[in-house]
Amino acid sequence: MTPAQEARLAIREGRHTGPTRGLAPGFVQCNLVVVDRSLAVDFFAYCQRNRRACPVLEVTDPGDPEPQALAPGADLRTDLPRYAVYRNGVRERDRQEIRELWTPDSVGFLIGSGMSWDHALERAGVPTDRYRWVLRTTRPTTPAGPFHGPLVVTMRWLAPAHVPVAIRVSASYPGSHGAPICVGDPSALGVDLDRPLFGGPVPRCPAGLVPVFWACGVTPQEAALAARIPLLIAHAPGHAFLTDLEADRHRLP
Amino acid sequence: MTPAQEARLAIREGRHTGPTRGLAPGFVQCNLVVVDRSLAVDFFAYCQRNRRACPVLEVTDPGDPEPQALAPGADLRTDLPRYAVYRNGVRERDRQEIRELWTPDSVGFLIGSGMSWDHALERAGVPTDRYRWVLRTTRPTTPAGPFHGPLVVTMRWLAPAHVPVAIRVSASYPGSHGAPICVGDPSALGVDLDRPLFGGPVPRCPAGLVPVFWACGVTPQEAALAARIPLLIAHAPGHAFLTDLEADRHRLP
Repeated sequence: MTPAQEARLAIREGRHTGPTRGLAPGFVQCNLVVVDRSLAVDFFAYCQRNRRACPVLEVTDPGDPEPQALAPGADLRTDLPRYAVYRNGVRERDRQEIRELWTPDSVGFLIGSGMSWDHALERAGVPTDRYRWVLRTTRPTTPAGPFHGPLVVTMRWLAPAHVPVAIRVSASYPGSHGAPICVGDPSALGVDLDRPLFGGPVPRCPAGLVPVFWACGVTPQEAALAARIPLLIAHAPGHAFLTDLEADRHRLP
Repeated sequence: MTPAQEARLAIREGRHTGPTRGLAPGFVQCNLVVVDRSLAVDFFAYCQRNRRACPVLEVTDPGDPEPQALAPGADLRTDLPRYAVYRNGVRERDRQEIRELWTPDSVGFLIGSGMSWDHALERAGVPTDRYRWVLRTTRPTTPAGPFHGPLVVTMRWLAPAHVPVAIRVSASYPGSHGAPICVGDPSALGVDLDRPLFGGPVPRCPAGLVPVFWACGVTPQEAALAARIPLLIAHAPGHAFLTDLEADRHRLP
């Protein structure tokens, strides 16, 4: 078994229930969105129109919970540690599996995650173990069908010498958000530092560190809130799906 | 008016009816596919699973013939010089406009084209005015719903010193097929040199030139033949849609 397969098994069996950062280093991690087939075209168009935030790495056939390209044998209903469930624009309690919510018309979208290149950043000498948040902005996404809402970003605080390295490393993974969209002042994006979606309260930025912002795969969850569709299932922020795809093979050719 | 807008107007008014290579140099050109909304999810999934051949740059809302992101004011029903029409897996006669085939459920997909970086190749000293064909291979694409079929490639013959330049230039346009998928022997891909889809008969390769192969946006038309869906409309090979997007701004960030 690969490290990714081992991690998925531990998750499926309930032995790992926390965030996936640092699990199976070097394997591509994905954000998950599950919608009904009737909304799949609109959601696909939403991803296409906002593809820095929502790069689709795989879409499953209706009803099939197995990502046949990225993780043969895996099951999207059980192999993520925590799921966020949105009904009519309201987030319900998180779940550890979604077997009873899955239908023959469920379509799963696997969307690239910036966690995929954490390992590459570490190898390049850029620490990734702290100073990382998921935050709303006031920048609107491009709507499609019922889906609309603000862009969500991942903010990392980096040492000045690490900024160009992190930009170059992340840029070589366009399927996992690619390069940052902004560096510096959070107000340029209207970033809401007061209500992080993941990462805990944001302290004052230590002197000398630089905020760097990447488009984030949690963006569709804000669109789910705004669209008030009957049901949208996603990964809980930070609790991603581990694929069998090695990040180094997912880099730019 | 930009050169792309001028070219689209000339096409709409019937003043330009031929291939689009060399028109509005430096603007992104797109392959077109139009399917009914009922097949749009499957076709979108087909593009995602074969995205080297089918990088979707825009998808229109059902019934809306205007590509609002890439060419505001344009009309997909009239602004391409020639359309290929496939009914139940049979190619009908080509058309110069498709107004009467367009319905409130028509969804247009604009797919990147390698012609988008012809201008960048020229600037880098690589001639693009000859030795260019669109050819079937025996390599299968990944199916989705009814869509399946062989990969189609663009073959160019290049001087040995131009090969690395062409690879680096095209690689920086991942939305327009990106880097080649193969260099050298056509038999590695099972390329059918006898029945080119565009470019005329293939002569013997002059000594010293190297065949280079890119995934091609004509691939969906082979899938239309294989899928035998009631109706699929596409650009006629070589007769692409000119967008307002400048290729240099479409390069990798």
